[in-house]
Amino acid sequence: MHKEAMELNEIIKKESPLIYGLLSETGKKTYFSKTGIFAQSLQAKQTELNATIGIALEEDGSIMHLKSITKYILLEPQDIFPYVPMPGKPELRKLWQQSIYEKNPSLKSLISTPVVTNALTHGVSVTAQLFIDPEDIILLSDKSWSNYNVIFSTQEPIFKSYKTFSEGGLDIDALEDAFGQNIGKKILLLNYPNNPTGYSPTNKEVQRILEIIKKRADMGDRILAVCDDAYFGLTYEDNVYKESLFAPLSNIHENILAIKIDGATKENFAWGLRVGFLTFGYKGMTKSVCKALEEKIVGTVARNISNVSNLSQSLVLKSLNSPDYSQEKQEKQEILKLRYNAIKEVLKNPKFNEYFNALPFNSGYFMCLELNKNIDIEKVRKKLLLDYDTGVVTTSGCIRIAFSSVNLKNIPLLFENIYTACKNIV
Amino acid sequence: MHKEAMELNEIIKKESPLIYGLLSETGKKTYFSKTGIFAQSLQAKQTELNATIGIALEEDGSIMHLKSITKYILLEPQDIFPYVPMPGKPELRKLWQQSIYEKNPSLKSLISTPVVTNALTHGVSVTAQLFIDPEDIILLSDKSWSNYNVIFSTQEPIFKSYKTFSEGGLDIDALEDAFGQNIGKKILLLNYPNNPTGYSPTNKEVQRILEIIKKRADMGDRILAVCDDAYFGLTYEDNVYKESLFAPLSNIHENILAIKIDGATKENFAWGLRVGFLTFGYKGMTKSVCKALEEKIVGTVARNISNVSNLSQSLVLKSLNSPDYSQEKQEKQEILKLRYNAIKEVLKNPKFNEYFNALPFNSGYFMCLELNKNIDIEKVRKKLLLDYDTGVVTTSGCIRIAFSSVNLKNIPLLFENIYTACKNIV
Repeated sequence: MHKEAMELNEIIKKESPLIYGLLSETGKKTYFSKTGIFAQSLQAKQTELNATIGIALEEDGSIMHLKSITKYILLEPQDIFPYVPMPGKPELRKLWQQSIYEKNPSLKSLISTPVVTNALTHGVSVTAQLFIDPEDIILLSDKSWSNYNVIFSTQEPIFKSYKTFSEGGLDIDALEDAFGQNIGKKILLLNYPNNPTGYSPTNKEVQRILEIIKKRADMGDRILAVCDDAYFGLTYEDNVYKESLFAPLSNIHENILAIKIDGATKENFAWGLRVGFLTFGYKGMTKSVCKALEEKIVGTVARNISNVSNLSQSLVLKSLNSPDYSQEKQEKQEILKLRYNAIKEVLKNPKFNEYFNALPFNSGYFMCLELNKNIDIEKVRKKLLLDYDTGVVTTSGCIRIAFSSVNLKNIPLLFENIYTACKNIV
Repeated sequence: MHKEAMELNEIIKKESPLIYGLLSETGKKTYFSKTGIFAQSLQAKQTELNATIGIALEEDGSIMHLKSITKYILLEPQDIFPYVPMPGKPELRKLWQQSIYEKNPSLKSLISTPVVTNALTHGVSVTAQLFIDPEDIILLSDKSWSNYNVIFSTQEPIFKSYKTFSEGGLDIDALEDAFGQNIGKKILLLNYPNNPTGYSPTNKEVQRILEIIKKRADMGDRILAVCDDAYFGLTYEDNVYKESLFAPLSNIHENILAIKIDGATKENFAWGLRVGFLTFGYKGMTKSVCKALEEKIVGTVARNISNVSNLSQSLVLKSLNSPDYSQEKQEKQEILKLRYNAIKEVLKNPKFNEYFNALPFNSGYFMCLELNKNIDIEKVRKKLLLDYDTGVVTTSGCIRIAFSSVNLKNIPLLFENIYTACKNIV
């Protein structure tokens, strides 16, 4: 093991045995070199005669670049072409951290400075690398993003699936049962608003979820709570919990390390820019452990991809700093909410229950239909494609509808088509 | 192991036992799902009523986005915001493949369609994941990019280091010796123009390198030849081999799989955009193995980061399609060549040899100085920082000078400063 990794481990072990115990074998070995080329370049940053920079400069010291690229962008070359520091653009990291506090008013405790990832998949992947060893137990509800299995596949954890819903809300007893009899390391993967169901817990449900997690931490479970907040902020009902579960979980118990994975992708409608963030917190977090774990995160980003697009980060930063930002974002959210309301209205027609029921939904981009047991879901999907010019996704045993991309006018027709397709198949 | 992974393995095993044998355990398990959400969305692409799309559309079907982002970019939202397919933008992949043929006129055989990676580090990382198991042997010259150790660290291979130079050129005997007595799987990491030395093999040296690799393949070694072509095209002497070693290696022997890792980063002066490519070829490559291995590469990209910035890919594509592209690129290369010539001129002064010698260099962004044995290199670096306002990097036991970022005027002063710093330390 590298000396610099051991130094980080010493700090973490001493001040937070919890986090040390949660680190994977790979996580323990990970560090971000303080002596390498990147560190040396940082030291030379202010020199008059700087021959450390691994990019190219013109004779006048400006950044070399091709005009066939810059002619499409109204930003300074500085915000497009140089490498950004591996943790991300400092100003963007600070601003995103600030926005996490603003979006989660109950959050008052110390959280790490977000590290920029190549969007949320990469945030999940970094988490997997740092914390998951083979046969670690991940608790995941049975309606979940199918890509989790792919992202975690290298680490070969055991996914312990629990029932998502019961009686129109979350099946929180199922979550409690999933913790099982044994005490030990448990990874909770919490994705709200959820993909594929479009469900977020209500305020009441959150209280129970927190009680259970806290109880298990009291019992001695060492818990990594991973909050995949991809669709954060897109909630359409008053009783929905408006903050991230990260807010309470990051300061609820010494045995819980909370990780927040979020970004501009869904929340700011910038899927193709690939800007995500990884942030963490735990009760009693010290600055030195915070720094040490941040370095392990940065070391992982460095090992995977070096750094994330400068241009993409600059654009997200410009947007966050724009006076119109909040207003713009709210307008888009309103559009989604209108569609959500329209679906609720359409589904009031009882005839649909002949063939399918909507799973609970109140947030995000999606909602799901559960077909009656005798209907072959894959047949319905294909019939919709062939005979009704209609595309839906089948996942987690349901039909997933992305109302984020279906306009208001088409919503009644969409459900009619699904209804008729089912009718013709049964 | 997933059924889809086994299907790919069957194809590869049947038609190319070489490649099957080169795959790592992770590589064997990797696949790109033909039934998942992404595949289902592809099938629904042309539908009138498409509820599969995981992005958001406006009521008129246009792509939802924030104006606080688009106001800085003179491209259509289509080229900025949607996810690109995981292998990369099809037109960009085709064009880059075509450019590989154009830049390597001797290359006539089948090569894969390049898969877009988050620049070159990610290309190396994908290669490591697919092909490297613990204790695999990687042959690497002793002057090399220090990040290789970091990128490959998860796989824990054995790096077998061999001497880079002998008598003013490559120490090709050292390369031959590094293959060792045992016959088996060998990974060759070939980085020309080299970081940190700025050396590329001459035409004569390439002939000998190829002879040796071919001889070892004849002896039964199963060879993965990884060509890190980050600095491709930046050569400053007539006798330097102008193509990538990938060109001959991808069609020289059935026992050699050649991988090419390249991109816009250094070659097109677009470091911060993060656009790289991963391409492969081997003698007698069949279309079905090509497709199967491509799917494993895409599966790895999907697992790591889902996909690479749409905007960055669009900009590289626009630039490649621009009528000014070649001319622009050549102008930048000329600037670097003038600096290269200036350094050669400065180093003619014999006084410098009192303290240091230049290692052979003829290409790329960098050149290296080897200090005389009695001089503490780290002391020199720090003295340069503190007393001479001069930044250099120490790596591979040398001082690395990035002449890519030092203007002509400063070149004599740079070497004077290093000279005086050495003088004051000895």
